[in-house]
Amino acid sequence: MAINYPNGKKFVPQKEQQTDPKKKKKKKDFSFSNRGKTLEDELNETNDYYLQLGRAVIHKKPVPVQIVRVEYPSRSAAVIKEAYFRSPSTTDYNGVWNGKYIDFEAKETENKTSFPLKNIHEHQIHHMAQVRKHDGLAFLIIRFSSLDRYFIVPFEAFEFFWNRMMDGGRKSVTLAEIEETGIELKPGAFPRIDYLPQLHKFQ
Amino acid sequence: MAINYPNGKKFVPQKEQQTDPKKKKKKKDFSFSNRGKTLEDELNETNDYYLQLGRAVIHKKPVPVQIVRVEYPSRSAAVIKEAYFRSPSTTDYNGVWNGKYIDFEAKETENKTSFPLKNIHEHQIHHMAQVRKHDGLAFLIIRFSSLDRYFIVPFEAFEFFWNRMMDGGRKSVTLAEIEETGIELKPGAFPRIDYLPQLHKFQ
Repeated sequence: MAINYPNGKKFVPQKEQQTDPKKKKKKKDFSFSNRGKTLEDELNETNDYYLQLGRAVIHKKPVPVQIVRVEYPSRSAAVIKEAYFRSPSTTDYNGVWNGKYIDFEAKETENKTSFPLKNIHEHQIHHMAQVRKHDGLAFLIIRFSSLDRYFIVPFEAFEFFWNRMMDGGRKSVTLAEIEETGIELKPGAFPRIDYLPQLHKFQ
Repeated sequence: MAINYPNGKKFVPQKEQQTDPKKKKKKKDFSFSNRGKTLEDELNETNDYYLQLGRAVIHKKPVPVQIVRVEYPSRSAAVIKEAYFRSPSTTDYNGVWNGKYIDFEAKETENKTSFPLKNIHEHQIHHMAQVRKHDGLAFLIIRFSSLDRYFIVPFEAFEFFWNRMMDGGRKSVTLAEIEETGIELKPGAFPRIDYLPQLHKFQ
């Protein structure tokens, strides 16, 4: 069974990724490698860690689905028998840190040289622009999975690349541009992707 | 077909409610009555209005479901064929207003004299307590549907009633207590439930 999320990203079971020989080669420091985890897994772990330590309250929103048919078997839980994936109208993660509203989208790419902008929906860009207007913090967390590199990119920088595409320019952001405008996050053990300390720089 | 949400509230089609003779009698001013809308409908309209006017960015979170089986018919969208309702780990609504993080739960009751606390999950109380620690605004919007009355109750007041129950006290909040600790919201046309102006009082 495979699950296709509305963003077109295919759900890949952990086992499959772990046995990928190309990935194995890169993992020199096993304890800090991503061990086949998706970026979503890593961010959920990180947010749980922040929550436990009282550092922030940030959650991933549920995948939006349109429920069409539900059955009620006797003596057991209701079963959804027909439903469809809906396009998300916002970003995936939001919450509160240090009195500030936090809002971000997380995406990974297997690409080694650039981040394709087709990974982001136009309404997500509009959403983040509105968040900024209301003085919330908006950003992206991007993982280059093949390179084991993570970046936090403030929305303003990202918006520039988006607008460049809308004006007929390139349909991706180069790794060099992300290195220049974002901040690299070095993955660790606890928390996995320690993005909170970087947010002070965005305020 | 009926949908039971995880909170046990039954989904009632609008038509059914509109033809309820008891309800009709109460509606003297048709243009400001709730016309069979659920509180969720009314808050979605209100939040859309706020968004259009650039006053706040507040969204309802999708209903959390555990997806078990998905099918991919050729030439059509993926269909979820088996899924289950999960208990929400947070409140239903959050967003940003005036630079502040906003977080609230919305509940309606047919009860005329009190609000039963079984409508709220314990982890939602914990969640709102954490939001307050991080200086976000947390509150409840309660509709007494039979009375056509709406209240906004700050989390601190609500927490008192919750703790009273946990200490062995009554399992509900009386209408009189809600009148005393909350602020009544008079429903209007645009926006339907104008709760934002009340938040200044909570800061």
